[in-house]
Amino acid sequence: MAGSTYGDIFRITTWGESHGKGLGVVVDGCPAGIELDEEAVQKYMDRRRPGGIKYSTPRKESDRIEIMSGVFEGRTTGTPISMLVINENHRSGDYSEIASYYRPGHADYTFDKKYGFRDYRGGGRSSGRETIGRVAGGAVALQFLNELGIEVTAYTKQIGPVAVNVDKFSKNDILSNDLYMPDEEAAKKAAEYLDEMKRNRDSAGGMVECIVTGMPVGLGEPVFDKLDAGLAKAIMSIGAVKGIEIGAGFRVSSMRGSENNDEYVMSDGRVSKLTNNSGGVTGGMSDGADIIVRAAFKPTPSIAAEQKTVNKNGENIDINIKGRHDPVIVPRAVVVVEAMTGITVADMLLKNMAANMDNVRRVYEK
Amino acid sequence: MAGSTYGDIFRITTWGESHGKGLGVVVDGCPAGIELDEEAVQKYMDRRRPGGIKYSTPRKESDRIEIMSGVFEGRTTGTPISMLVINENHRSGDYSEIASYYRPGHADYTFDKKYGFRDYRGGGRSSGRETIGRVAGGAVALQFLNELGIEVTAYTKQIGPVAVNVDKFSKNDILSNDLYMPDEEAAKKAAEYLDEMKRNRDSAGGMVECIVTGMPVGLGEPVFDKLDAGLAKAIMSIGAVKGIEIGAGFRVSSMRGSENNDEYVMSDGRVSKLTNNSGGVTGGMSDGADIIVRAAFKPTPSIAAEQKTVNKNGENIDINIKGRHDPVIVPRAVVVVEAMTGITVADMLLKNMAANMDNVRRVYEK
Amino acid sequence: MAGSTYGDIFRITTWGESHGKGLGVVVDGCPAGIELDEEAVQKYMDRRRPGGIKYSTPRKESDRIEIMSGVFEGRTTGTPISMLVINENHRSGDYSEIASYYRPGHADYTFDKKYGFRDYRGGGRSSGRETIGRVAGGAVALQFLNELGIEVTAYTKQIGPVAVNVDKFSKNDILSNDLYMPDEEAAKKAAEYLDEMKRNRDSAGGMVECIVTGMPVGLGEPVFDKLDAGLAKAIMSIGAVKGIEIGAGFRVSSMRGSENNDEYVMSDGRVSKLTNNSGGVTGGMSDGADIIVRAAFKPTPSIAAEQKTVNKNGENIDINIKGRHDPVIVPRAVVVVEAMTGITVADMLLKNMAANMDNVRRVYEK
Amino acid sequence: MAGSTYGDIFRITTWGESHGKGLGVVVDGCPAGIELDEEAVQKYMDRRRPGGIKYSTPRKESDRIEIMSGVFEGRTTGTPISMLVINENHRSGDYSEIASYYRPGHADYTFDKKYGFRDYRGGGRSSGRETIGRVAGGAVALQFLNELGIEVTAYTKQIGPVAVNVDKFSKNDILSNDLYMPDEEAAKKAAEYLDEMKRNRDSAGGMVECIVTGMPVGLGEPVFDKLDAGLAKAIMSIGAVKGIEIGAGFRVSSMRGSENNDEYVMSDGRVSKLTNNSGGVTGGMSDGADIIVRAAFKPTPSIAAEQKTVNKNGENIDINIKGRHDPVIVPRAVVVVEAMTGITVADMLLKNMAANMDNVRRVYEK
Repeated sequence: MAGSTYGDIFRITTWGESHGKGLGVVVDGCPAGIELDEEAVQKYMDRRRPGGIKYSTPRKESDRIEIMSGVFEGRTTGTPISMLVINENHRSGDYSEIASYYRPGHADYTFDKKYGFRDYRGGGRSSGRETIGRVAGGAVALQFLNELGIEVTAYTKQIGPVAVNVDKFSKNDILSNDLYMPDEEAAKKAAEYLDEMKRNRDSAGGMVECIVTGMPVGLGEPVFDKLDAGLAKAIMSIGAVKGIEIGAGFRVSSMRGSENNDEYVMSDGRVSKLTNNSGGVTGGMSDGADIIVRAAFKPTPSIAAEQKTVNKNGENIDINIKGRHDPVIVPRAVVVVEAMTGITVADMLLKNMAANMDNVRRVYEK
Repeated sequence: MAGSTYGDIFRITTWGESHGKGLGVVVDGCPAGIELDEEAVQKYMDRRRPGGIKYSTPRKESDRIEIMSGVFEGRTTGTPISMLVINENHRSGDYSEIASYYRPGHADYTFDKKYGFRDYRGGGRSSGRETIGRVAGGAVALQFLNELGIEVTAYTKQIGPVAVNVDKFSKNDILSNDLYMPDEEAAKKAAEYLDEMKRNRDSAGGMVECIVTGMPVGLGEPVFDKLDAGLAKAIMSIGAVKGIEIGAGFRVSSMRGSENNDEYVMSDGRVSKLTNNSGGVTGGMSDGADIIVRAAFKPTPSIAAEQKTVNKNGENIDINIKGRHDPVIVPRAVVVVEAMTGITVADMLLKNMAANMDNVRRVYEK
Repeated sequence: MAGSTYGDIFRITTWGESHGKGLGVVVDGCPAGIELDEEAVQKYMDRRRPGGIKYSTPRKESDRIEIMSGVFEGRTTGTPISMLVINENHRSGDYSEIASYYRPGHADYTFDKKYGFRDYRGGGRSSGRETIGRVAGGAVALQFLNELGIEVTAYTKQIGPVAVNVDKFSKNDILSNDLYMPDEEAAKKAAEYLDEMKRNRDSAGGMVECIVTGMPVGLGEPVFDKLDAGLAKAIMSIGAVKGIEIGAGFRVSSMRGSENNDEYVMSDGRVSKLTNNSGGVTGGMSDGADIIVRAAFKPTPSIAAEQKTVNKNGENIDINIKGRHDPVIVPRAVVVVEAMTGITVADMLLKNMAANMDNVRRVYEK
Repeated sequence: MAGSTYGDIFRITTWGESHGKGLGVVVDGCPAGIELDEEAVQKYMDRRRPGGIKYSTPRKESDRIEIMSGVFEGRTTGTPISMLVINENHRSGDYSEIASYYRPGHADYTFDKKYGFRDYRGGGRSSGRETIGRVAGGAVALQFLNELGIEVTAYTKQIGPVAVNVDKFSKNDILSNDLYMPDEEAAKKAAEYLDEMKRNRDSAGGMVECIVTGMPVGLGEPVFDKLDAGLAKAIMSIGAVKGIEIGAGFRVSSMRGSENNDEYVMSDGRVSKLTNNSGGVTGGMSDGADIIVRAAFKPTPSIAAEQKTVNKNGENIDINIKGRHDPVIVPRAVVVVEAMTGITVADMLLKNMAANMDNVRRVYEK
């Protein structure tokens, strides 16, 4: 069944394989009248680009995004915004060996069983390049949200055993190093850990945290399309994510109610909270505090070390995966988490417009 | 926007408030020809019933489920199955105080801001009774899955700081105590912890784990409607859940690739895996191993201890929430996690039928 | 696949069979804060009630609608509104003969082939009673639209060869006779025609026209969820409808462009049209003129005259369908067309709120 | 709200404007393993190409379709199939005049009111070129259906007052003339009528009929996603369609039940019908007979004759639309009706797989 569309009102549909002709996205339902900065979209794309940072694939691809429709005289028109990247680097012939067996931790086996066969070149549709459409769509969502004063910011919280240990930091702090860790000391230790992993022909996992500021209250549609449920789906759908939590997250399991409840208090004439264990979502709706979500990423499954697996003939074999692979997915995934969060919030924000008659009258009683 | 419908092919739509006339669900898209055991549905409902166990609300409600449509001569007909519970216990007048302020950790504030006002009686739509429709729908999903050899089993893995410490157990072990913990020692300690919470007018969080056995390979629709993404949404939409993880979950952040990858091996002529860090989902599709998901539940927000909050007039006040409340949500939520997991797997199983021409031909070439 | 849900933001899910325990609807996504007149819902339901008019089934059923949720202190809360009718008249045993063969023009054969068997009592899910949920949902939609000055009015335009021949009429004129024809002369001739059909143990077809006044401009979501496309689906989904047209409809096939184009002209400082061949929809969006749609209904398939058919054993047989059946469906379908039109317009009106940044700012910049 | 996606399991998402960089479609949910003939897709596209026939726009565009993803080694992979056409002919500057006023019968006014402004070049998103994505998607759907023995064939049934007057004809008869009328005499008269329209600076409407053979029984999901309801939406969403009917269509209004009912009879050991007034759909599900649908198309709204309208300053003006326009839309729309019908049947066919446990077991019990 069709599974490449996400969102109801603000909706993205992505397509493309790692080594096909290209990859892209159709963003449908974006409100008309947004001044879309095309260069900002490209800069956003560059943050997921291979070759951009030390610990990612050395393949150099410019990944130039082209906006094909939906923007006229610099503004969104309300019609679908189609964006695509042409693949420059799709040599064939490298993948004959991979085609014959199932790489541990990859989708080779499940793809074959579900569809009967697979485009094995570079991982096909399950490659990290699949996120190109997500990030391009996210770039549009973020420009939309920014117009309303909503900011989405993700960063690398942890790589292997090394976690960021600072509380306050700026967007610049995040972008100050290749690992997108806003804590120079942690970044240095993480780099050493990654060097060790490379020496051992191994790879590392990690964690990304994403924060949304400027949230209106009430976004999220109970009881199934709650804001946190939407975020959970959006972020879990990113390849390699194995866990998602919001606010105090898994820590709530061992907390007491008196400790976890966020008490309300008036502040500057507005309702606010003394703590934010809810991570900005109470009862499935935004409560006005910052959204705080975290995603756990598994280690890159492609490792050079020897592994057991089976081939298509049903024989047990030992393999060594060749080629140069990222020892860690996380830094390049930061922008993907940001994108999926932004798309979810944009969609929820538009959905919430229909929640009550006051909103309806604001639009129709002119 | 409508948010009370979940699922695409196998789909539930729930309705009802805590103290309205009743609550229910419409299950649409259930395949025709399933022998539906109505008594088994009722027994399943009884597992979420208040009054059934020591550490839950002492209110006694029979919560008798009635099947109104979609079943004829004992079998599902393929038309919508409407099921409902009439509320027996809806005294009014108790809630005038609660109506005037926002309880910390509850959806009072967000409901008011989103919709302009709320049905404040017993939490209205954000009450735990909202899960009646989920559990009734889940009972149907599980009977469907059982016919195909798929079993869904959840249990209490942790209450406060007390975790289950056994690996192997049966469904009977789970049902052997009020807390649904398949580890007598842990159950005893957890009970003591809950007694302490009650004495302190406080409450406890916890964790539920759910296991699905007998899974076919290939369920899940990349790239957004992956099996794990669907489970994340389904389970995060349950009230009080703040985190969801699959397989090794958050532990993958600090694991190495060589440690985390599940190696394949032939076993009895079939592809199987030496480990199950993936929790049964690889590349967003079921890989044939057991599905293993965990959900973190926050402590019951209704506590008797004094709390700060604000009222509808924008004044800071101190409150003590009256009434007798569960000191922990988790044991009653076990069946809800099971239900949402079952509904997700049922929907994914039906979606996967259209994945390839072999399946299409099996159905249409007679 | 689940097919009993209609609408995206304003959404109905219907359930129930003719001779099951009851029938109903869940209306989800209705904006909060509408003063819902429950008695008006009942009166609306009465317009589709059997026994209400001379040319309909003499079965008397009170069809008392009960609102189970989603309304608090007289206002919609934004949560699902569940409404249901308990079947009073579900004697069994009458249907053993019908169970054995396929009635021409009925869904008996297609139901059996699709689902493997069917609830044959009174037509089961394909009975006219299925429209109970549609009409109850429509009653809510119309109250919502009325608050914004939008009125939906349908009437019987034709019964058999007899067509209404007046241009101007009021809602009262429509309700002045059992056939809902706002033309006394036509109503009289149609009644004579129906008497003739009854004498001949035969039945008649007809046509319903529906008019929506007070439409805002721009409702409808190109290119697939256009307003006319939505209306076409909604109305064609009503049992017995075989055609749907808008404005000049099928006449456009033989019109010239200069004849069909609606010219624009300023009137009272607003853009208006000199003609309304478009039926109020241009480019798939409302153009501000009245919506005008027509639906063709086939004759009641249940006729007393002898017919050929086959039975479940694959034998050719001759049948006479017993019981008393409506000689025409149309008068009772008038309110169903109105309901489906109202639901579609309500949904489109909410969808359109997200069309541009001006609307978004009106809601969020407070 | 996003409106450029159609279908649930087999789903298309289209994008692009007349004079933007290009137009295209993403086909998602197409079963894996179909041998996709790319050249056949191009040939299918050529049938809607401007310049291909005498009575269509003389603009020559090659409209070369490129398949960007979803096909590997000649077969569909189950992943999204992205196809696009680069616009070769997008001179700007021609449209300054059109930008200032609202052309009668066009979507200029409604677009401006809904979105605040519009891409006025060549009609933007409401141009006939929007159908490029539909036709490319339809080409894939038809190849899928052909593998199962299902054929979809449309033709021009009427142009202005001239109707086809033959009953039996082949696909070749349809393709034998520029107007796609399988009746040489009618085609000749229609051509003369069109010449007259051109001389008068006017345009003509018409009608398309579409026939589907080889239908399995039971496709269609009651009660809202019925097969005829889906076809009605799909076809009404095509620009310029003002009416849709199935089988006897609007004629049923004046038919008697005994006349309209299709009697069943055994034929070659199978249930068949003596007539096909139902147009192959009974109770919203395919009944095994050929699907027969007709769509009424309005005359081309762009005419050279003088027309009244208003401009953006709210002034009444007289206009003459310049440029060379098709005097009739119908011949080029034939393939579009075929495409939308094919996509709808493909989607319904996949949906129906989940209808009953027999089908489920056929797929999962290996």
